[in-house]
Amino acid sequence: MRIAIDAMGGDLAPTEIVAGALEAAQLWPDTEFVLVGDETAVAAELGAAARRVNLRLVHAPDQIEMDDDPARAVRRKPQSSLVRACALVASGEADAVFSAGNTGAVAAAALLGLGRIPGVSRPCVAVVLPAQGGKVIVCDAGACVDSKPEWVAQFGIMASLYAADVEAIANPRVGLLNIGEEACKGNALTKAAHEQLANAGLNWVGNVEGKAAFRGVADVIACDGFDGNLLLKVGEGVAEFIGQQFKQALTADWLAKLGGLLARHSLSAIKRRLDYAEYGGAFLLGVKGLVVIGHGCSTRRAVVSALRKTREGIEHGLVRRLAQRFADSDEAAA
Amino acid sequence: MRIAIDAMGGDLAPTEIVAGALEAAQLWPDTEFVLVGDETAVAAELGAAARRVNLRLVHAPDQIEMDDDPARAVRRKPQSSLVRACALVASGEADAVFSAGNTGAVAAAALLGLGRIPGVSRPCVAVVLPAQGGKVIVCDAGACVDSKPEWVAQFGIMASLYAADVEAIANPRVGLLNIGEEACKGNALTKAAHEQLANAGLNWVGNVEGKAAFRGVADVIACDGFDGNLLLKVGEGVAEFIGQQFKQALTADWLAKLGGLLARHSLSAIKRRLDYAEYGGAFLLGVKGLVVIGHGCSTRRAVVSALRKTREGIEHGLVRRLAQRFADSDEAAA
Repeated sequence: MRIAIDAMGGDLAPTEIVAGALEAAQLWPDTEFVLVGDETAVAAELGAAARRVNLRLVHAPDQIEMDDDPARAVRRKPQSSLVRACALVASGEADAVFSAGNTGAVAAAALLGLGRIPGVSRPCVAVVLPAQGGKVIVCDAGACVDSKPEWVAQFGIMASLYAADVEAIANPRVGLLNIGEEACKGNALTKAAHEQLANAGLNWVGNVEGKAAFRGVADVIACDGFDGNLLLKVGEGVAEFIGQQFKQALTADWLAKLGGLLARHSLSAIKRRLDYAEYGGAFLLGVKGLVVIGHGCSTRRAVVSALRKTREGIEHGLVRRLAQRFADSDEAAA
Repeated sequence: MRIAIDAMGGDLAPTEIVAGALEAAQLWPDTEFVLVGDETAVAAELGAAARRVNLRLVHAPDQIEMDDDPARAVRRKPQSSLVRACALVASGEADAVFSAGNTGAVAAAALLGLGRIPGVSRPCVAVVLPAQGGKVIVCDAGACVDSKPEWVAQFGIMASLYAADVEAIANPRVGLLNIGEEACKGNALTKAAHEQLANAGLNWVGNVEGKAAFRGVADVIACDGFDGNLLLKVGEGVAEFIGQQFKQALTADWLAKLGGLLARHSLSAIKRRLDYAEYGGAFLLGVKGLVVIGHGCSTRRAVVSALRKTREGIEHGLVRRLAQRFADSDEAAA
C-alpha cells in the first residue's frame, strides 16, 4: 500500500512529520510513504534516509498556513503540499493521505479533490478520545458546523461503521451529544437529530451529556461539528488546567514533592493515557478516499500513531465499506 | 434583608438545603431566611432550630421534580415550593430567592413570576468556574438555547455587569465562546454574535476557544445556553475522569500509595479549589428579581456559599443596576 503525507502541514512541520514518516517506513517495509512538500526542505530533513526504498519525495512548492481561510486557500494554492497529496489519492497513486495541517483546509482539499461518497451530505471528522474503560469516538469534531439533523444522523452512521471496522468495537453503542438525557431536551437541532438517529438502525443509546461522555456510556457520540469541536477543546483545556493544578500541588512543599517523586512512575502512565499522541489521527469520513488528519502540533510519535491507523483504514477498505453502506441505504429507500 | 429558599429543590432536598439555611441563619443574623416547602418535612429537618428569630417557614404543599418538564410544571404547580418562593420576591416579601432545583424550572418560574427586565430579550444563567489565576464566568450556562446573536450579546453585557458588581472584577474582559480565535471562525450564530459583542461597549477580548477558557484569558465568556451548558458539563466530565485516573495512579502500587499519602494534604487543596461547592450559586440575570440557582446536588456547604453570594447580590442592588443599564441603552438608542 501507499500513503501520501503532507510533509508541510502542522505546527512542527516538516521536521516532526518527516521524522515520523521515517520511523513508519522502518516499521512497515510493505508500505510506501510519499512525502509531499518543498523538495529542499524535506530532503534536508531526510538526509541519507532519502534513499530508503519505501520512501518517496514529491515536490510541492506551496503550502497552506494554519491561519489561511481553508476553502479559499485550497482553491488558490493548487501547488500546495496538501492539495497535491490529495491529488495522489484521487489519481490512484496513493491509497490514503495524512495531514497534520489546518483541519478545515484538509477537509476542503479532500472534498474538492476527492468528492463526496454518493449519498453522504457532508463529510465529518471522527476523533478518538480516552474514556473510562477504553475510548469514545466523537463525530463530527469540527468539519461541519450549522448541521442539519439528517447530517448529524449520517455522522453517527459513518462513525459507527468506522468504530466497528477500524477501532474494532463490536456493535458500537451510538449516542447523541446533548445537554439533557431525555429526548425532549436540547436545542432545535439535537431534538430533531435525536429522532433521526433513533430510527437509523444503529445500536442507539440516546442522548449523552457532556458529563457522561467520558464515562464510557457510548462508543460513538454523534454531534454537529461546532459542538464536537467545543467538547474536544474544552476537554483539552480542562485537562491542561487540572494537570497544572496537580503539578503545583505536587511541588507545593517538600512532603508533596517527595510524594510526587514516589508516585512518578504511576503518574506518568496516566499522562501517557491522556496523551493525544497515543490516539493516532482522526479520520475524515464521507469523502471518496481515505483521509487522516493529525493534531496540529503532531510530534513524530503522533505521526507514527496516525500512520498506523491509516494503514488499518486501508486494510479494512473503510472507504469502500462506507460507500457500500450508503449505496445500500439508497436501495432501501428506493 | 430577606431571602426565600426553595427547601424542596435539589437532589439532597430538603435535608441539605435546610441544614445550609440553618448554618446561614447563624452566620448572618441580620438576614431573615424564609424556607418554602412541605411544612412537616421542613419542620422535621429544622427541629428545635425552627424557633430561630431569623428563620421562617412558609408552607408549600407541592414540589417540582428534577425530571418534570420545566415550563409545564411551573404552570401546573402554583402551590410548589419553587413557584411560591418566587412569588415572595414578586410581592416584595423577600429580596431574593435561592433554589437548587431543576435549572430550567427555576428559570421558567422566575420568568413567569417576576417577568423580564425591560429591554432584556432572554434571561441567562451566569456560572462561575475556577480558572488559572482566579475564575471565569460563563453566561448563558443553560437557560436559553437556539439564541439569536443579539441575545448572546446581552448575555455578555449582563454577565459583565454582574462580574464587576458581585464578583468584584474591575473592568471585566468579555469574550465569546467559539471554535476558533479569528472573527471569521465559528457557526452562523457565533459569527453574528461576535460582531454584536465587539460593538457593545464592553472590554471585549474576542473569541475564546474551549481550550483557552480555563487559562484566564477572559473574565466573562458569553455564549448560547446550549454551548455554555456543554462547556460546563464536559468540564465536569473531564474533571471526574482525570480525577479517577489520578486516584487509580495513586493506588497502583505501594510506592505510588506512599507518594499519594505524603502529598495528600496538598492534593486535597486542589480538590477544594475544583469543588463547585466553593463557588456558590449561579445568578439568573435579566428577570425583575434576584434569583440564585444552586447545583442540583448542592450540599449544606454549597447552600451556604450560594446564600453568601445571594446576600452580595442584594447588597450590590444587582437587579436595579441591570435595569438601569438597559434603561440607559434604551435612551441611547432613542
